[in-house]
Amino acid sequence: MSEPVQFPIKTVAIVGGTHGNEFSGIYLEKRYRAAPELIQRSSFSCRTLFANPMAHQANKRYLDSDLNRQFKTADLANPALRNYEQSRAKVINAELGPKGAAKTDFVIDLHNTTSNMGPCLILTQPGAIYNLLAGYIRLKMPTAVISRDEDHVAVADHALLCTVGTYGVIVEVGPQPQSVIRQDVLEQMDEMTRHILDFIELYNTQSLPQLPDRVEAFRYLYSIKLPVAATGERVGMVHKAVQDRDYQPIQPGQPIFTLFTGEELAFAGPDVVYPTFINEAAYYDNNLAMSLNEKVWIDVYTG
Amino acid sequence: MSEPVQFPIKTVAIVGGTHGNEFSGIYLEKRYRAAPELIQRSSFSCRTLFANPMAHQANKRYLDSDLNRQFKTADLANPALRNYEQSRAKVINAELGPKGAAKTDFVIDLHNTTSNMGPCLILTQPGAIYNLLAGYIRLKMPTAVISRDEDHVAVADHALLCTVGTYGVIVEVGPQPQSVIRQDVLEQMDEMTRHILDFIELYNTQSLPQLPDRVEAFRYLYSIKLPVAATGERVGMVHKAVQDRDYQPIQPGQPIFTLFTGEELAFAGPDVVYPTFINEAAYYDNNLAMSLNEKVWIDVYTG
Repeated sequence: MSEPVQFPIKTVAIVGGTHGNEFSGIYLEKRYRAAPELIQRSSFSCRTLFANPMAHQANKRYLDSDLNRQFKTADLANPALRNYEQSRAKVINAELGPKGAAKTDFVIDLHNTTSNMGPCLILTQPGAIYNLLAGYIRLKMPTAVISRDEDHVAVADHALLCTVGTYGVIVEVGPQPQSVIRQDVLEQMDEMTRHILDFIELYNTQSLPQLPDRVEAFRYLYSIKLPVAATGERVGMVHKAVQDRDYQPIQPGQPIFTLFTGEELAFAGPDVVYPTFINEAAYYDNNLAMSLNEKVWIDVYTG
Repeated sequence: MSEPVQFPIKTVAIVGGTHGNEFSGIYLEKRYRAAPELIQRSSFSCRTLFANPMAHQANKRYLDSDLNRQFKTADLANPALRNYEQSRAKVINAELGPKGAAKTDFVIDLHNTTSNMGPCLILTQPGAIYNLLAGYIRLKMPTAVISRDEDHVAVADHALLCTVGTYGVIVEVGPQPQSVIRQDVLEQMDEMTRHILDFIELYNTQSLPQLPDRVEAFRYLYSIKLPVAATGERVGMVHKAVQDRDYQPIQPGQPIFTLFTGEELAFAGPDVVYPTFINEAAYYDNNLAMSLNEKVWIDVYTG
């Protein structure tokens, strides 16, 4: 499938509260809604959207199913999928999409993690505009991390909300416990979001500054599970030497889990990997312990 | 009301999962249940209790109301209080109590906080045994914090689960997000719990080592709320210079909140205070921002 080309970017949407207990995006969307001058630029219009208000009211990630897993093109078209989040996805698709022919050129979806990931820009599709954006964020927030999350998967098969626009990215900031708002995390999310808006303005007006030629990024490989007994019961936890060390290398043979009995389990993979979403609270429902990544380079000035 | 005197301590109960999303106590209780030799000592019997299994199954603090607020003597006797946690309180009172004439001499209730409080021993009643325990914990875990939480309130009027025993304390360890288990936090909880058991053994056998004469502690004064508009909506958050600085002094006039508009609000109290439970996730339902304390000294060898 060919890369979408939309130039200039005329319509942008900032989405908060896709997960009801990730408070930074919820309060930031509310703030931008109250003070729209913060997100207006000369070359495009920008709106906001509060994606999952009922989950927020219940102080939960979601009511029926994860809203950020409902945006495959086929699922959006499937009338049998009709629980709360599946319904919200269809409504959001009508408001911002429809996916594949969207009225929104660029979607910025705001998320928090309980993991120690700092501010992180997550790209879910390849393309020249994303490469330039990665370079711009590296320039403006040198410590921010660029992540490529299954950007080889065709957009139609991507289930993430941000894929409802022609372009879309996730701003992911942590660590922040669920249902808490931290000023430092809110400020990092605000800063990255405004840099993205500035980038789009500069992209539209063809006035981007000189960017680094290439940018280090982390590319998602696969997830690993917490130690679980045959009964389904969790019998261990993330090793304390791995906890909070998102993006730090894990070596083959390094202990990564500690069983409640005290025994340690080593990483069985053959290669050095880089973990993200270490011990993320929201992933316990599937017993996911962390995501593993490889280090890659993004060439900023080539497609 | 006179202080209870129970010597020696013959029966101890370790309670986990009073709050269903505080995972350290839940996994530690399960571990002790599977390996009871870890908690046995020669001079007393020790059992464990999983206090709120249904809240844990729902991955929530509680289903109907906070179980750790249901243990006032009058409430335990009130048949009109019959939601899930009120019913659990009555069952636990029958199992470990009855409060005021308990079959359990010493209750250790295990809790987590999302706040940066480290390992903390919380005392809810005054008395010679608690003073000795404070001295012993200071000796064995020098960096652990001793907290006195409304220990002037008569035990009958205390709503905390640990007051169901003749004696009782809370082991509170953070920071840990809700619904997450961190190895470092689990180990701190395990260590403090085993020190308490060792203390009881030494107390019973009158073989305590020389303890410090006095121990610094934090005594709860009152809680303050997040900035809230007349509509009830939160309009601000804990100031980033206060976040994570539990036990560090707050000066009169120091900024403690930041409004979402950027404005800062100063602490209006007349005296230096010491915050705990800063930005605790579980207290958002009441918009509590933090607890404020004074520094006090506990004389270890006087009542």
